[in-house]
Amino acid sequence: MKTYSIALIPGDGIGVPVIDAAWQVLEAAAARANFKLEAKRFPWSCGFYKETGSMMPADGIQILRGHDAILLGAVGWPAAVPDSVSLHGLLLPIRKAFVQYANIRPHRLLPGVEGPLKSGGFDILCIRENTEGEYSGAGGRVHVGTPDEVAVETSVFTRKGVERILRFGFEQAQLRRKQLASVTKSNAQRYSMVFWDEITEALSAEYPDVEVKSYHIDAMAARMVLAPESLDVVVASNLFGDILTDLGAAIQGGLGFAASANICPDRTSPSMFEPVHGSAPDIAHLGIANPIAAIWSAAMMLDHLGQAAAAANIIKAVETATARGVGTRPGQDRTDDITAAVLSALT
Amino acid sequence: MKTYSIALIPGDGIGVPVIDAAWQVLEAAAARANFKLEAKRFPWSCGFYKETGSMMPADGIQILRGHDAILLGAVGWPAAVPDSVSLHGLLLPIRKAFVQYANIRPHRLLPGVEGPLKSGGFDILCIRENTEGEYSGAGGRVHVGTPDEVAVETSVFTRKGVERILRFGFEQAQLRRKQLASVTKSNAQRYSMVFWDEITEALSAEYPDVEVKSYHIDAMAARMVLAPESLDVVVASNLFGDILTDLGAAIQGGLGFAASANICPDRTSPSMFEPVHGSAPDIAHLGIANPIAAIWSAAMMLDHLGQAAAAANIIKAVETATARGVGTRPGQDRTDDITAAVLSALT
Ligand SMILES: CC(C)[C@H](C(=O)O)[C@@H](O)C(=O)O
Ligand SMILES: CC(C)[C@H](C(=O)O)[C@@H](O)C(=O)O
Repeated sequence: MKTYSIALIPGDGIGVPVIDAAWQVLEAAAARANFKLEAKRFPWSCGFYKETGSMMPADGIQILRGHDAILLGAVGWPAAVPDSVSLHGLLLPIRKAFVQYANIRPHRLLPGVEGPLKSGGFDILCIRENTEGEYSGAGGRVHVGTPDEVAVETSVFTRKGVERILRFGFEQAQLRRKQLASVTKSNAQRYSMVFWDEITEALSAEYPDVEVKSYHIDAMAARMVLAPESLDVVVASNLFGDILTDLGAAIQGGLGFAASANICPDRTSPSMFEPVHGSAPDIAHLGIANPIAAIWSAAMMLDHLGQAAAAANIIKAVETATARGVGTRPGQDRTDDITAAVLSALT
Repeated sequence: MKTYSIALIPGDGIGVPVIDAAWQVLEAAAARANFKLEAKRFPWSCGFYKETGSMMPADGIQILRGHDAILLGAVGWPAAVPDSVSLHGLLLPIRKAFVQYANIRPHRLLPGVEGPLKSGGFDILCIRENTEGEYSGAGGRVHVGTPDEVAVETSVFTRKGVERILRFGFEQAQLRRKQLASVTKSNAQRYSMVFWDEITEALSAEYPDVEVKSYHIDAMAARMVLAPESLDVVVASNLFGDILTDLGAAIQGGLGFAASANICPDRTSPSMFEPVHGSAPDIAHLGIANPIAAIWSAAMMLDHLGQAAAAANIIKAVETATARGVGTRPGQDRTDDITAAVLSALT
């Protein structure tokens, strides 16, 4: 029987119960589809940091490399460990080390879910560049602590990096409604964003079947609220994608429903799947974390592994549950009940 | 009689009719309040550029400096003149030359206006840093046109620049509900945004009556859609403020209602007032531009000039008009009718 080895990193806070939930659903879906998933759990987290002094072992990346995919819950416990340590010691290094340059986040309203917008008919796939750009980590500060202090932060965009994310976007658009929205701010950022626009323009000739439009980030943010139904695939830089996908999560009813995949498209290293939400320390022990974002992310993992039918089965089961209202009342529905409803809706 | 000299720059497209409308309302309000406004019109625009080769004369900044305030419509006609020329030849140089470091944009639903959100009870004042940060214009490209090309764009934040915009934010919060939301992305941009957070933290001790919270830009974008009523004053960098204010415009019903002020707080040079919308070439000759954003911006100008009662009179007249439905049906209401309704509602 086809067997996949999955690295589970539940992480902190609600990361733990949502990964438990997602794993139950994954195992049930795999059993029905005649393949096997083997989990290896890694306790890497802020708790792990408190004990060992690092978020993961020195050979953490090496260890993960041996797996077919990574399923991560959430990392961070700001009261105990600064974000600079927790995120930069685990999440961000994995994305970069495994060249998971495409961060994919689907935004649509699941049946039964109340979004904040009056209009509801949208189905957007956001694709965020995940390895460079505004989060390159290049910069510094001079005259520190004096009135003359200056901080600089440099966005670095490479042709290779921009081309590959845009190609990925074009290809995703070909699989969907063939509309690509490329997001920049080239009227104000004349080096990085003009560069991105030029590459978009050049590549568009290679994908004549895809209709491409360029938007400025400010106008796109407004469009996601005023006319989300006008969007199909949206491709954006690391920062702009970060912002747009939280906005996407908002219009789809909140972070409880926002799934994501950090994809290494050439499959030279494992991809990582994670809900967009964080560890939510404030509700971590209440048993009310919504596992739907994690379950949806797990379905994206199966799809990536080539198990499209099992992935579709999970998505359908989630939709069956939410259509009945299960998981649609934040703070009321319990994690266990939502998980049970999804499990029982699998076919 | 107290007299103010106002530089009018209608600019391009719908900039012209909305400034005409705003000027009529200004004159009527001034007459009622016993002060005088003297307009000097400057035809600086893309048309001007086509004739003269520049967006404004070489001594344009000098000329403007002699006025008490600037009222601008909109600049840009991308089909004829690239944004890089039109914006960087007029709008952005004015903001920088006159140290208009505080870009203020109010976001609330006028009575009778239908926003895209199910919830409507918000009243947000966004304050955007307007002179440095991500729009500093520092950067470059190497290996141009080769597969190895790299583009860098450097955000520059100075302590002076960050401190003064935050102080401005604290002071505005003191005049309102005493809540300040500071927006960064310090978990991913560890030089510029950590710097901003540190200064926020340090200044907060000087304003003990203001409650300060820090948000990441992604979470704030989601909050503007999910819980806008939780926000009072929002202060953000040039880019983040740019994005959040378009989002603010969206939730208040669109750009037809989004006013803005580019303020030089120490009054060493004139401030500039402009609707957030652009020149909208597609609808420029249809007579349907909504002048409310420009009229509201003009009211902000009177307020800045010390004519608070006249400013309030204009705002009340706008509200009377929109409460009757005038100006609330984009594409249907005519500019002239909206202007007439506001004029007749002045008291
Ligand atoms: C936690 C943070 C560094 C992360 C990011 O910005 O990449 C998160 O916001 C996300 O969207 O995955
Ligand atoms: C036109 C553009 C350069 C401008 C800006 O980003 O400052 C506009 O978007 C605005 O918000 O005033």
